[in-house]
Amino acid sequence: MDNFTYYSPTKYIFGKEAESRTGEMTAWMGASNVLIVYGGGSVVRSGLLARVKESLGQAGIAYSELGGVQPNPTDTKVYEGIELCRALGIDGILGVGGGSAIDTAKAIAAGALYDGDFWDFYAGKSIVERALPVGVVLTIAAAGSEGSGNSVITKTEGLHKISLRTESALRPRFALMNPELTMTLPPYHTACGIADMMAHIMERYFTSTAQVGITDRLCEGALMAIVEEAPKVMADPFNYEARANIMWSGTIAHNGICGTGRAEDWVSHFMEHEISAVYSVAHGAGLAVVFPAWLTFMASHKPARPAQLARRVFAVTDTDDTAAALEGIRRMRALFRSLGLPLTMSELGIADPDIDLLVRKLHENKGDVIGTYYRLDSEATRQIYQLCCQG
Amino acid sequence: MDNFTYYSPTKYIFGKEAESRTGEMTAWMGASNVLIVYGGGSVVRSGLLARVKESLGQAGIAYSELGGVQPNPTDTKVYEGIELCRALGIDGILGVGGGSAIDTAKAIAAGALYDGDFWDFYAGKSIVERALPVGVVLTIAAAGSEGSGNSVITKTEGLHKISLRTESALRPRFALMNPELTMTLPPYHTACGIADMMAHIMERYFTSTAQVGITDRLCEGALMAIVEEAPKVMADPFNYEARANIMWSGTIAHNGICGTGRAEDWVSHFMEHEISAVYSVAHGAGLAVVFPAWLTFMASHKPARPAQLARRVFAVTDTDDTAAALEGIRRMRALFRSLGLPLTMSELGIADPDIDLLVRKLHENKGDVIGTYYRLDSEATRQIYQLCCQG
Repeated sequence: MDNFTYYSPTKYIFGKEAESRTGEMTAWMGASNVLIVYGGGSVVRSGLLARVKESLGQAGIAYSELGGVQPNPTDTKVYEGIELCRALGIDGILGVGGGSAIDTAKAIAAGALYDGDFWDFYAGKSIVERALPVGVVLTIAAAGSEGSGNSVITKTEGLHKISLRTESALRPRFALMNPELTMTLPPYHTACGIADMMAHIMERYFTSTAQVGITDRLCEGALMAIVEEAPKVMADPFNYEARANIMWSGTIAHNGICGTGRAEDWVSHFMEHEISAVYSVAHGAGLAVVFPAWLTFMASHKPARPAQLARRVFAVTDTDDTAAALEGIRRMRALFRSLGLPLTMSELGIADPDIDLLVRKLHENKGDVIGTYYRLDSEATRQIYQLCCQG
Repeated sequence: MDNFTYYSPTKYIFGKEAESRTGEMTAWMGASNVLIVYGGGSVVRSGLLARVKESLGQAGIAYSELGGVQPNPTDTKVYEGIELCRALGIDGILGVGGGSAIDTAKAIAAGALYDGDFWDFYAGKSIVERALPVGVVLTIAAAGSEGSGNSVITKTEGLHKISLRTESALRPRFALMNPELTMTLPPYHTACGIADMMAHIMERYFTSTAQVGITDRLCEGALMAIVEEAPKVMADPFNYEARANIMWSGTIAHNGICGTGRAEDWVSHFMEHEISAVYSVAHGAGLAVVFPAWLTFMASHKPARPAQLARRVFAVTDTDDTAAALEGIRRMRALFRSLGLPLTMSELGIADPDIDLLVRKLHENKGDVIGTYYRLDSEATRQIYQLCCQG
């Protein structure tokens, strides 16, 4: 087991009407003049934004708004938020929505207290040492940003989609998680969220660090729970229990508890980031295509852990590792198919992907040889992108 | 799923030489004059106490000492610590050792800032609203106190052993966890620790709240990891990887992540507390006797979850719930036996237990009818104590 630090000081308030505690919790985190960051109109139409404001008002907390955050959020909105913070004396940020709103909120929180360009953090030129406190009202079970110290932003110029990881500087102080708020999410986006959280666990699961049984078992347990609950939320979007299990699983998947004590391997996420940056597909949908392709490559190059995943999570009984791995991939794809997710680039809506471009950008952003479970050069990642076309 | 709050802000520093960061982390938690609370001579003999002091000295932190905490720690030592804190202007407590040292450190931390008798918190007469910050250097994988907000203290007068639970007021600010420090623990105490952490998970697992699959799966995963690693640490106490897995499992078992979203059932712990308070046996050894007895009672009264535990953790294949539950208990007892743990009261060294006394004290302390998975009156708990005699 590798030495590690685990520090996850987010306070989770989970359950019905959790959003009614926005004001109380914002005061708890020490803010009195906050910027509410959100995305599209659904937060407005559902009445959630009004309830959030009402709760803030009752607690005597001043607020301003920054709406219009897009999926695959960009630096443009972050710069806008940083300007607002400085102009208005903002002392805390509330992300209301899913990963895009929360990741934007985090980027603003870091940038507002930084003299240089906030992109320095994402470009690896500077480390986040302080940030405005961030609170979250979660409406989408997917990205896990409500419990992580991470943020993914796309630089408009050059379409560089980069993930910033911090140990704790950007972890939300609190997350209000009412599963009812996720019930009206369209089925396709629900399914994309499920693929995203499964990937978050698997990218921690595929490790080169041996003998960390406790972390393996936690990963497998969380994956099994998701595999069991996913068909229930698709069959009945208003099944509270299933929505609650999926929502909490999304947090468990990404708050770090599934990654303690070992190296992680985020190549599938990196490969998908290039796809969604260039083609603007939903991140989770891209992962449903990339992850099985990555696994298929591993089945013939390093099948041990794909086989363990297949046996323990997907109840595969083959004794041969490669055969077990391939059968596990088949079952995972069958699950994704049943959820309505795409399995190939063309199903993702990309008829003729520019694989040269994807490979070049991937290695430009992440280095010549990437991955920890198995080291991949540009020839190998090209093969995986090609596998994404075959399904 | 029940509404819940989960807040676990302990910073875990895990791995080799973690204790060398005592000074740095004590400063991080904002203390400059600490009381070091520890138990017997092993912390002194091993040189750990000297290393802790050296680290504090290097960080410019003043310290005083309170040694001599006994297993099943009592109020006497807590009062002594509170006096010291007030006399010396202590602003932080370091618990160095296992659960007894840490639980005593927490009780002192709460009592030092309270005008009344610290026992008020344990007697349910007052709620801990503030406490001195507590840091931990862990030497025993067992109690999970390094990551919990709980503390168990025995009132000398009347031998009342009571567990205090706080959401976060008594959670350690940091825990330094070097698995090497657990390698010299005698085999019997290693085994007792394993029984204790398994019980911490199972008492969260046995719930009356339906449909919390994610929490079930995390519990089962942690239990499977412990079942796999326990024989390894017994076979080779110096197996670092196995020690590390067991140590982190002990934290996972008790930091709350295995209990989110549902009622818990701590009757087995309560029943054991009466045994160890009266007969001064090791807590984990008592649990190895009580838990299978409690499960045996449930196999004939409410076998559904004991059967699920048997199938998912102990690979039992019986389709009948009662049969599956009983086979699971048989396998759990076989594991405990292989670890060198007692299975009956007489093996625990209690030839003729005063069951009348245990039942009376249990219900005096905890109420006429106890338990959430299944409600137990004094006739039922008497039957379970009797099952403890049979093995």
